[in-house]
Amino acid sequence: MKKVYVLLAEGFEILEAMAPVDVMRRAGIKVVTLSLNKTLEVNSAQNVMVKADDLLGDYKDADGIFLPGGYSGYENLFKSEEAMALTKYYLDNNKMVAAICGGPSSIGRRRMIDGRNITLHFSTHELVKDFCNIIDEPIVRDGNLITGSGSGYSIDLGFEILKYLAPETIEKVKKGMTIR
Amino acid sequence: MKKVYVLLAEGFEILEAMAPVDVMRRAGIKVVTLSLNKTLEVNSAQNVMVKADDLLGDYKDADGIFLPGGYSGYENLFKSEEAMALTKYYLDNNKMVAAICGGPSSIGRRRMIDGRNITLHFSTHELVKDFCNIIDEPIVRDGNLITGSGSGYSIDLGFEILKYLAPETIEKVKKGMTIR
Repeated sequence: MKKVYVLLAEGFEILEAMAPVDVMRRAGIKVVTLSLNKTLEVNSAQNVMVKADDLLGDYKDADGIFLPGGYSGYENLFKSEEAMALTKYYLDNNKMVAAICGGPSSIGRRRMIDGRNITLHFSTHELVKDFCNIIDEPIVRDGNLITGSGSGYSIDLGFEILKYLAPETIEKVKKGMTIR
Repeated sequence: MKKVYVLLAEGFEILEAMAPVDVMRRAGIKVVTLSLNKTLEVNSAQNVMVKADDLLGDYKDADGIFLPGGYSGYENLFKSEEAMALTKYYLDNNKMVAAICGGPSSIGRRRMIDGRNITLHFSTHELVKDFCNIIDEPIVRDGNLITGSGSGYSIDLGFEILKYLAPETIEKVKKGMTIR
């Protein structure tokens, strides 16, 4: 069974986090949400409080890691040494790293993805335009790095993750979600 | 300011609930999530625990009410006299009622929407096909009743609600969500 960690930082975007969680769990991927707070409770940018599955730890055993955006979520990801070090491990060990909206800016500013092709929210382009190759598309995949431009493409990002980790499940998941 | 209540019953579909909440809050609609449990915590079908804003009460002051699907969420909505009575008040007083996936089946089985045009999840067609006019579309609007077929169209349902309650906000919300 494939496994993915989802980093929930205070101020994360609720749709950006939950759409991929939903799509991945429907596909049978083991998804574990990790709180960057000292407690499991994390409040989203949309003011919906969510209880994470576990606290952030040095969890290197999964097939991938996912960073939602949302303000101040992506800033809090950027500021977290622990979250950034863990994400770097996944990047450097050819495990999947997915990020959406402001999420890609967190790792871009940390200079982990220099020269790589990404998409991200237009409000965060300035933060990384000198280091990354920004492509004007809703979803961009560059090797083990999957990025999405914003919350409108959260479901699409979920399916891009499935293409990478569990392509055999896509038809079944689409059917359950009534996607034509 | 427009106001919408969102009914969160144990086992609700996380994406179906959160996408419209997100879209509506971005549009400046006052969204209040109501727990059908005895506490604010409600667990979703995707096993993400959410803290609602308030407990369900006889809240008739909003412009609309929204019923997400998800199993066992839509069954728990159907079984709740209080939730069903409140929804009937909104239906009968020409306030907006939105429902998605299994959500429309709850009010259909309660015979609140006889003869009306709806869409809903294929797994729940049998429950209401003798009472409602099921249309094979992702989103259907019939007067004050807005329905969606499943979680794949949760974002679209959010925008259909905006068309009804806050059309002037659509362009701005789409831009923020990077929707082309």
